Amino acid sequence: MYFTGFRCFECGKLYRPDEDLLLCPACHNLLDATYDYDAIGRDLDRDAIAARPHGVWRWREFMPVLDDAAIVSLGEGDGPMLRCDRIAKAVGVRELWVKSDANNPTGSLKDRSITVSATKAVEFGYKILSCDSTGNKASSVAAYAARAGLDSVVFCPDDTPVPKVTQALYFGARVIRVRGHYSQINAMYRKLIHSGAVKWYDCGTDNPFRYEGKKSYAYEIAQHLGWRAPDRVVHPANGGMSIVKAWKGFGELKRIGWLEGLPKMTGVQAANCAPIAKAVLAGANIVTPVEKGPTIASALAGADPGLLGNRAVASIRESGGTALGVSDAETLEAMQLLASEGLFIEPSGAVAIAGIKRLVAEGKASPDERVVCVVTGSGFKDFDQIASQVRIPEETVGSYEELLAAAQALG
Amino acid sequence: MYFTGFRCFECGKLYRPDEDLLLCPACHNLLDATYDYDAIGRDLDRDAIAARPHGVWRWREFMPVLDDAAIVSLGEGDGPMLRCDRIAKAVGVRELWVKSDANNPTGSLKDRSITVSATKAVEFGYKILSCDSTGNKASSVAAYAARAGLDSVVFCPDDTPVPKVTQALYFGARVIRVRGHYSQINAMYRKLIHSGAVKWYDCGTDNPFRYEGKKSYAYEIAQHLGWRAPDRVVHPANGGMSIVKAWKGFGELKRIGWLEGLPKMTGVQAANCAPIAKAVLAGANIVTPVEKGPTIASALAGADPGLLGNRAVASIRESGGTALGVSDAETLEAMQLLASEGLFIEPSGAVAIAGIKRLVAEGKASPDERVVCVVTGSGFKDFDQIASQVRIPEETVGSYEELLAAAQALG
Repeated sequence: MYFTGFRCFECGKLYRPDEDLLLCPACHNLLDATYDYDAIGRDLDRDAIAARPHGVWRWREFMPVLDDAAIVSLGEGDGPMLRCDRIAKAVGVRELWVKSDANNPTGSLKDRSITVSATKAVEFGYKILSCDSTGNKASSVAAYAARAGLDSVVFCPDDTPVPKVTQALYFGARVIRVRGHYSQINAMYRKLIHSGAVKWYDCGTDNPFRYEGKKSYAYEIAQHLGWRAPDRVVHPANGGMSIVKAWKGFGELKRIGWLEGLPKMTGVQAANCAPIAKAVLAGANIVTPVEKGPTIASALAGADPGLLGNRAVASIRESGGTALGVSDAETLEAMQLLASEGLFIEPSGAVAIAGIKRLVAEGKASPDERVVCVVTGSGFKDFDQIASQVRIPEETVGSYEELLAAAQALG
Repeated sequence: MYFTGFRCFECGKLYRPDEDLLLCPACHNLLDATYDYDAIGRDLDRDAIAARPHGVWRWREFMPVLDDAAIVSLGEGDGPMLRCDRIAKAVGVRELWVKSDANNPTGSLKDRSITVSATKAVEFGYKILSCDSTGNKASSVAAYAARAGLDSVVFCPDDTPVPKVTQALYFGARVIRVRGHYSQINAMYRKLIHSGAVKWYDCGTDNPFRYEGKKSYAYEIAQHLGWRAPDRVVHPANGGMSIVKAWKGFGELKRIGWLEGLPKMTGVQAANCAPIAKAVLAGANIVTPVEKGPTIASALAGADPGLLGNRAVASIRESGGTALGVSDAETLEAMQLLASEGLFIEPSGAVAIAGIKRLVAEGKASPDERVVCVVTGSGFKDFDQIASQVRIPEETVGSYEELLAAAQALG
């Protein structure tokens, strides 16, 4: 057992590893899991991990779980890490890798963290999992609840993409559709959870266990690159916790002597909803809510990321990285670049490519960098945005002669 | 180099490994790749493979590729292998595993084989990849062509599910929609390819290189189960080549001394289009075409599997397995069983579960078996079939009071 408990990011108070916690009971800030890194470094061989079954749970020692028998898994993590020279050239960097979470069990990044919270729900004996979500978290919670034989309740904006809601319903979730944008729903949902009116296991923004699953990005990237950190990791940012936890993961590897170097963590938001970028660029420590404008990146709707956003700003700054907002036009171009390498990615997942392109163009990232862009969701998850980019031909052929003519017309 | 060439399944003629082949030039039957298994057994350690990056290409020595630099990969293979006790209980077997290809790069089994044919297209210097397809092969060919920087042309029935056609178009494929069912299109497409009228690299039913990728099912299943074969492998069957090649893969492992036991290979088709099952049950060696009836399993539309079907019958019989057709109602129930374990699978991918359930009920499979069911495609690939199973609630809530009331109404 290497998981030793929690420390409050804000007040520093410590908690035992067997406590059922959300926010810090003392100051209501975010908690961060702690581990005995000396013991991990002593007991574990980084090369031996390569022989374990792949996925999030090959990093078992770095996860805040007490009982292996409770683990709820659908085979998440270890999505493709693809060197993309065509995209590198288009965005102007020496070396670019795409780390794709589009092939996770439910098609998005959320499975990396929900596998951990579902496991904790089982450990703690809950019967119902819940969350608020722009859609991806909802379908993930529904799938892992099903896998665990538990029920689920999810709260989504009423304009959530149909595939995400359908997926959640298909897994048996009760879906409550809420009028308003994500941060408004997040505020109401958190109030519900903290009111004690329901006895559900919250897999939402306050759960400190689930976020530890996101450290697996760092481990996988480091392992794939031969335990040398890339110069920069670019990640879509809604609340920003993926960036916080990937940064933590790289730091853990460095601390136990497994990793050379550390990456600049870079967050990309939709320009019309970019409170983290605004704070980073203004040099502020506290993220101020913004007025949410329209964007095709529907999963990046965190106009008020709150406590998460503040942690994201801190991690980005500590790493020497930056943040920015990109336009819908830049996102659509990024989606096309990904398609040119055979990758089918939803708008919210594609912004990392748009982000690095702009940073290089503006001289804020060096063309000499080795960059890893995380793409976080399948094109199927926001299918209408993909479908609007293509035209299914109306013409059909019905005989060999017509088929031959159509083939020859292609040259 | 362990790949030694090809042997015709029918006439036994041998061919060199560097030849650009489709069917046997001598007798126009299917070719089967040959390897120096003694050398593989001597040079390779099965446990060392576990430390390689996961996916189809960790089995490099078993693939018919001459030039590693030509490999075109999107990170295919090594989808989740999940023990599903709830499904086991529902279908009545002691132990049931689901091997899911839904999380392959383009969301279906096809990526296992198209990664090989795309690689051969690069080796041979082609500029355009082509195939006929009920949809999944089309989107896979389009994606791998894009990844390789090549063009693609695909021929699909005019009623192909929209997500599959959209995905192919999004990757830049030219899509030719053909009136008729799959086997009719297959006959016209093969005539086109063999006419020499086009200089495309055929990734369709006659390509002997690409099928070798499907052996990776066997390797992954064997490795996951500690190099002991399961009692039975159940796989959806259209042409049936996945069954032929998984059977070959298990046989290879047995031959080089890595595997204990061999599984009964079992093919599941749609009852309304089940020519392979018909031949197996009749004790025939040659598959006779059937009249295709309607089915929700749109990828299992091979009313005339031709040469492939004959090979499938031979493999099934050699293994001591069987084949059967299942109704749409049984398929829908199988999809629900998969959803109860958190799996989101298209109808054509779910039939394996329906098949094992029926075999146990009819006393044709033992309740004592350890069974692996392969599920071959994501629910997103035939999304309308999934969407028709759920109802998105019309009601919305707009305030905390309404949200609280909705939550409390759930009990």
